[in-house]
Amino acid sequence: MKRIMLTVAYDGTAYCGWQKQPTGLSVEEVLTGALTKLLGEEIRLLGVSRTDSGVHAKGNLCVFDTETLIPPEKICFAVNERLPEDIVVRKSEEVPADFHPRKCDSLKTYEYTVYRDSLPDPLERRTSYFFYRRLDVEAMRAAAAFLVGEHDFASFCSARSQAESTVRRITELSIREEGKKLVFRVQGTGFLYNMVRIIAGTLLRVGVGFWPPEKLPEILAAKDRQAAGPKVPGHGLCLMEIRLFPEGFPEELKETWR
Amino acid sequence: MKRIMLTVAYDGTAYCGWQKQPTGLSVEEVLTGALTKLLGEEIRLLGVSRTDSGVHAKGNLCVFDTETLIPPEKICFAVNERLPEDIVVRKSEEVPADFHPRKCDSLKTYEYTVYRDSLPDPLERRTSYFFYRRLDVEAMRAAAAFLVGEHDFASFCSARSQAESTVRRITELSIREEGKKLVFRVQGTGFLYNMVRIIAGTLLRVGVGFWPPEKLPEILAAKDRQAAGPKVPGHGLCLMEIRLFPEGFPEELKETWR
Repeated sequence: MKRIMLTVAYDGTAYCGWQKQPTGLSVEEVLTGALTKLLGEEIRLLGVSRTDSGVHAKGNLCVFDTETLIPPEKICFAVNERLPEDIVVRKSEEVPADFHPRKCDSLKTYEYTVYRDSLPDPLERRTSYFFYRRLDVEAMRAAAAFLVGEHDFASFCSARSQAESTVRRITELSIREEGKKLVFRVQGTGFLYNMVRIIAGTLLRVGVGFWPPEKLPEILAAKDRQAAGPKVPGHGLCLMEIRLFPEGFPEELKETWR
Repeated sequence: MKRIMLTVAYDGTAYCGWQKQPTGLSVEEVLTGALTKLLGEEIRLLGVSRTDSGVHAKGNLCVFDTETLIPPEKICFAVNERLPEDIVVRKSEEVPADFHPRKCDSLKTYEYTVYRDSLPDPLERRTSYFFYRRLDVEAMRAAAAFLVGEHDFASFCSARSQAESTVRRITELSIREEGKKLVFRVQGTGFLYNMVRIIAGTLLRVGVGFWPPEKLPEILAAKDRQAAGPKVPGHGLCLMEIRLFPEGFPEELKETWR
């Protein structure tokens, strides 16, 4: 028995999200089906991040156990032949049999893309949120700075969340301009339900001048979802990367947080 | 009666190309239908560039005549409400009644995108050609330089072409790297059928080392389609911009060509 970890990329447009749902087809279902057929065993996937409906991924992770004799690093090529074009296993590797990705310390990186123009670009419509109002990027950057570090993000969490604690650490929150695209890059040690999309919606409120950047400490202190901005649509969001630390976060990394 | 010019962007994935075809739905048909409903008149579109099946556009142009009282610059907003998400009219403007875009001198710019990696990225699959072999970009640039200027491009033209002369001028042919993407940017005063896709396929043959850059003058001199490389798939191609010169190319521009 081997434990295999997959790095999975997908265009989330056609899916109800990573996890199996009664409402539609999930990435997990399609990938489980392809692996089961390829390996001739019943496969149970354990995913690291349950992306929402319409959300994309360049590097989601999942593990499963198998008896296969296919070399671990070749599984990605074999399974891709049984997957639709909008799901690609980018990497497959063996991990220790007791490796449990959800129990590891982790750093996740998301990007949220806004497309700024008077009219949308049809070639960007699946992966960015169209926004025609003018945005003050410097004000948004000033607002973003208040969110970096360890905070109680209760105001940035949809009600559905079952998290015990709403304290999380954001290690990076940058905003870069790429032509008409504005990309929010958020890295953190953990995220609450809809947290990145609510952060993006809140920063856009600052960008249009509805709130000053100094509103952010107030929103954090309120610990109330109503205090923050709206949740922006899922199709602008992409899970870029997950880094797992089975031995816990290294001290050198933690030092950069202080 | 007014003559209106539209700047049209589309994701070509779902279409058989710009022009009406018995084989599938065309961009021209969908746009004609939306304009006819909006304006309550029978609309006949005259397109500038007949992009092929699966090819995208950020700035194709077309004109039509109308009696409408809607201000010309507002037509784009009104028609977009009747168009599917994969077609967007980016601009509408009035042009002189005798303006005939296909009779103008023009400069067209295309980009062809290659995605280089060992496995595809599902978020790039609709707009780039996946290529897993290593490419020598410098060799491709050296090869590309032979194509800039006025040449007989008969070797870079699919048989279906009905062009009288196969002499064309390429004013720019650059290759830029954007992460894993390699983008060929081609600007010229006119293009033969499939010319950009055959140029890209020929440059890829140089990139993999199958041909040296110095093969290009020989391919041009052969004036034979068999001499050049393969035509790469349409979904990597995007018509970026068309500049029209109703009074002919200005002298200052022509001087830069010499």
